[in-house]
Amino acid sequence: MSIKVASDIEIARAAALEPIETIAGKVSIPEKHLFRYGPHKAKVSAAYAGNLDSKPDGNLVLVTAISPTPAGEGKTTTTVGLGDGLNRIGKRAMICLREPSLGPCFGMKGGAAGGGYAQVVPMEDLNLHFTGDFHAITAAHNLLSAMIDNHIYWGNALDIDTRRIVWRRVLDINDRALRETVTSLGGVANGYPALAGFDITVASEVMAIFCLATSLDDLRKRLGDMIVAYRRDRSPVYCRELKADGAMTVLLKDAMLPNLVQTLENNPAFVHGGPFANIAHGCNSVMATKTALKLADYVVTEAGFGADLGAEKFFDIKCRKAGLKPKAVVIVATVRALKMNGGVKKDDLGVENVEALKAGCANLGRHIENVKKFGVPAVVAINHFAKDTDAELEALQAYAASQGVSAIVCRHWERGSEGTAELAQKVVDICEAGEADFKPLYREDIGLFEKIETIAKEIYRADSVKADAKVRDQLTQWEEAGYGHLPVCIAKTQYSFTTDPNKRGAPVGFELPIREVRLSAGAGFVVGICGEIMTMPGLPRVPAAETIQLNAEGQIEGLF
Amino acid sequence: MSIKVASDIEIARAAALEPIETIAGKVSIPEKHLFRYGPHKAKVSAAYAGNLDSKPDGNLVLVTAISPTPAGEGKTTTTVGLGDGLNRIGKRAMICLREPSLGPCFGMKGGAAGGGYAQVVPMEDLNLHFTGDFHAITAAHNLLSAMIDNHIYWGNALDIDTRRIVWRRVLDINDRALRETVTSLGGVANGYPALAGFDITVASEVMAIFCLATSLDDLRKRLGDMIVAYRRDRSPVYCRELKADGAMTVLLKDAMLPNLVQTLENNPAFVHGGPFANIAHGCNSVMATKTALKLADYVVTEAGFGADLGAEKFFDIKCRKAGLKPKAVVIVATVRALKMNGGVKKDDLGVENVEALKAGCANLGRHIENVKKFGVPAVVAINHFAKDTDAELEALQAYAASQGVSAIVCRHWERGSEGTAELAQKVVDICEAGEADFKPLYREDIGLFEKIETIAKEIYRADSVKADAKVRDQLTQWEEAGYGHLPVCIAKTQYSFTTDPNKRGAPVGFELPIREVRLSAGAGFVVGICGEIMTMPGLPRVPAAETIQLNAEGQIEGLF
Repeated sequence: MSIKVASDIEIARAAALEPIETIAGKVSIPEKHLFRYGPHKAKVSAAYAGNLDSKPDGNLVLVTAISPTPAGEGKTTTTVGLGDGLNRIGKRAMICLREPSLGPCFGMKGGAAGGGYAQVVPMEDLNLHFTGDFHAITAAHNLLSAMIDNHIYWGNALDIDTRRIVWRRVLDINDRALRETVTSLGGVANGYPALAGFDITVASEVMAIFCLATSLDDLRKRLGDMIVAYRRDRSPVYCRELKADGAMTVLLKDAMLPNLVQTLENNPAFVHGGPFANIAHGCNSVMATKTALKLADYVVTEAGFGADLGAEKFFDIKCRKAGLKPKAVVIVATVRALKMNGGVKKDDLGVENVEALKAGCANLGRHIENVKKFGVPAVVAINHFAKDTDAELEALQAYAASQGVSAIVCRHWERGSEGTAELAQKVVDICEAGEADFKPLYREDIGLFEKIETIAKEIYRADSVKADAKVRDQLTQWEEAGYGHLPVCIAKTQYSFTTDPNKRGAPVGFELPIREVRLSAGAGFVVGICGEIMTMPGLPRVPAAETIQLNAEGQIEGLF
Repeated sequence: MSIKVASDIEIARAAALEPIETIAGKVSIPEKHLFRYGPHKAKVSAAYAGNLDSKPDGNLVLVTAISPTPAGEGKTTTTVGLGDGLNRIGKRAMICLREPSLGPCFGMKGGAAGGGYAQVVPMEDLNLHFTGDFHAITAAHNLLSAMIDNHIYWGNALDIDTRRIVWRRVLDINDRALRETVTSLGGVANGYPALAGFDITVASEVMAIFCLATSLDDLRKRLGDMIVAYRRDRSPVYCRELKADGAMTVLLKDAMLPNLVQTLENNPAFVHGGPFANIAHGCNSVMATKTALKLADYVVTEAGFGADLGAEKFFDIKCRKAGLKPKAVVIVATVRALKMNGGVKKDDLGVENVEALKAGCANLGRHIENVKKFGVPAVVAINHFAKDTDAELEALQAYAASQGVSAIVCRHWERGSEGTAELAQKVVDICEAGEADFKPLYREDIGLFEKIETIAKEIYRADSVKADAKVRDQLTQWEEAGYGHLPVCIAKTQYSFTTDPNKRGAPVGFELPIREVRLSAGAGFVVGICGEIMTMPGLPRVPAAETIQLNAEGQIEGLF
């Protein structure tokens, strides 16, 4: 994008934001049902959001992407651009996004509210405390941690095996020093010394539950179902037994209401919840999506990482559990990223290379095939970059056509909704054709290991799944304990279909090793972990925090 | 209070709250300068709060108390009641209170927003996340912690002595397991193992700074001035050297704006900031107090603990530094608490005991004398309890008269402002008489140890101060380093003028041992610690959290 345009922050600051009441009015939310956070953010009241059942659902559209590369794909900008595009062609449309995490903003530079002329605003608020949802999740999570240690301190009536406490603590910050700690040092008054550690807030099971719960009652039930520790006989100790579920629900009561903001083109957007896309399912909250479907005719949402991880979890976990029926899928691709998938190095991306593009298209092709397995029609959005050549774009479109899908060049980053009107019309055509017949990839009643195998073979195209006896025995034990019906959530590198991040394109002839399995009994899925998963990031040598500050006009500098 | 009245929460729920715009209108804050958090909470914009300099200041009234006892004194209810009483008699009055801490709400039962018919509402919000100020402080504090460890991880260019890191972490929760920890276990990627620990958020120096800063520029300067560690040569490492002050200021930008809420009688109240009253100064923010003084003719505020600690710090730290000139002091006393100061056990408080009351009045008398030393006229508010007898009340009033001050029976808990109209009139009379001539207890230019001695002898009435050579040398070093002009902040039990919590009344013939001194270079005071100071509480055997929950109507139960 070497053309001279304004920076994201310049564009965001120049935006003419409308009062949030006006935005709410566009989807008929009465002003009295807004819980405002200043002029440009609001939560929608529980009384309103909970009384929309009689309304029909709009069309749910998922934006996903090819396997990500350092070249950038632009899933969030495309989601925002498509929402604006749908509004531009006269449809009542909303978008649903995840909330950015506060901690990482101070590490590597870069916020998470779109970019160019496809952004959600107010940008600074979104990237800082926003409406406090993540702080509430942090507080609820750590209250439970304190109650576990306190229970042991006062006599351990539940007979918790202090070596088998699986509930860690969380903070919304990148702090590697907290990954592994010893707590309760200093003597009798401070409790029993124990190994402990912190994850980043988005990795909390509370976050996953927050995003899957359909009501406050459901939230409390799921929180109560969480396993926090085991006894010597390996029987689980539930959050409910610590009597923490009620207070945690109270702490999350307001946070559970969807957050309404707007795009640069003043269209309504829910930004709510943000679970990890590896050890959790990586989509915004069910509360937001379900509410949006009652308010708008088209709801555009996104899922984390590439389609192998994000779309699969969106379908098999979120849609299955929440009863959602997506009508269309947009797969975001870029010429640059496909060329990288075809073997081009990042420094050489500025040079036309149709052959590499064609080679990289295998990655796109596999994602297209995969999405079709869920019964949902797809369209490819080519997120246009300035150095894309006509030959490359034509080759990409020809490839997509050969796979039976359209590929539409989108210029929302540069032109806003004008750049996505064609994509929007295509999405409308797909939805109106009514061809979608969503079904999850696997049935609930097959075994947990078979579920992992199904994903590995059908989506990743592994030849086999490797897991030692310990992992298989654990899965069997969970099946016997009544968790066999749960979907699985694979934690794997997002850069490849395999577990090797360097294997781009569409690799075949590999096995998928499952190193470890974890039970998220409250969120309602079993996590299969392939390789190392970092749940507490660190700060880089020069953190962005060093340059973030208020300038003389009181504006925030360095955040983006 | 054995009479049958509604509970605090019943009264609060039955309250007819006015929209926060209406409340703001009572002190002429235009609606456009409100940053609303739902219908009943708002922050006042920086643009408005920062442009009131040309207006005259109202009268500042401090509510303080006798030495606290388990019998309860009712400082906050009296502050609320007096504010309502002033409005009732036709004065334009506001109150300024501290924000309650979230963590302790889940430990011992009991919120902190007044009680009976003298409450600030919405009560649940105040006791939970409120407007997120404390979460912002937690995030800012822990960002600095992460940046310190990150700096060391990447090579320690500042040459920090890792044994001498004095910056801990904070969480707004009671969690004894976090008091003393070892961090950075697990190998190279997690940094260098180190002793570390967590305090509760209100104990953070960031909280103290937040409450003393007069602007965002001042905030940033003070944050930068904080000492986070020392080098091997004992030279200090400042927050500014880690380049964390800019990002911390950004995190605190919105939090710095005062929070407007209302009393049960729909009068305006600022509730903002809440530093510890032992290792910090224990008053609401300077931003809130200064803004309120521009908006109202009377501003009623309170200080933590009894007058020996709370009022002294309010005068010598907050008023001195912020240039505030209080016009009157209300000393809250109860018959019950004075009887306890006179030797009666808690179980026997229901029995009339005029002699014990008279004996306990020595405690009140000393606080009256102390307050006069600051040049501010005082009045005693007798917070009435149902079992107080006429003979006891008369004896108390007679004692106060013998000390040259009025003592007025107040029934705000039972009757709201009707119960404080007489006190309100007395406060107006005092202010209008213009007798106040506020001056701090000691000059800035005397030595740090002499400041401690002055407080010990003049306020606590100790014969002497005991401190070993290490403490005295440390104070001398700080004087040489340019910190000699700072006021001192004594951390001492609130239950006695001495360091022995069991010595009630007005003890004489003791020495004050200073065990340790700490420098809060950003907040701008030196802390003198007498005995053990707990900066991270624990949860009790049966935490309140176990019974806190939403009821079938979606209301919060168990929080109060």
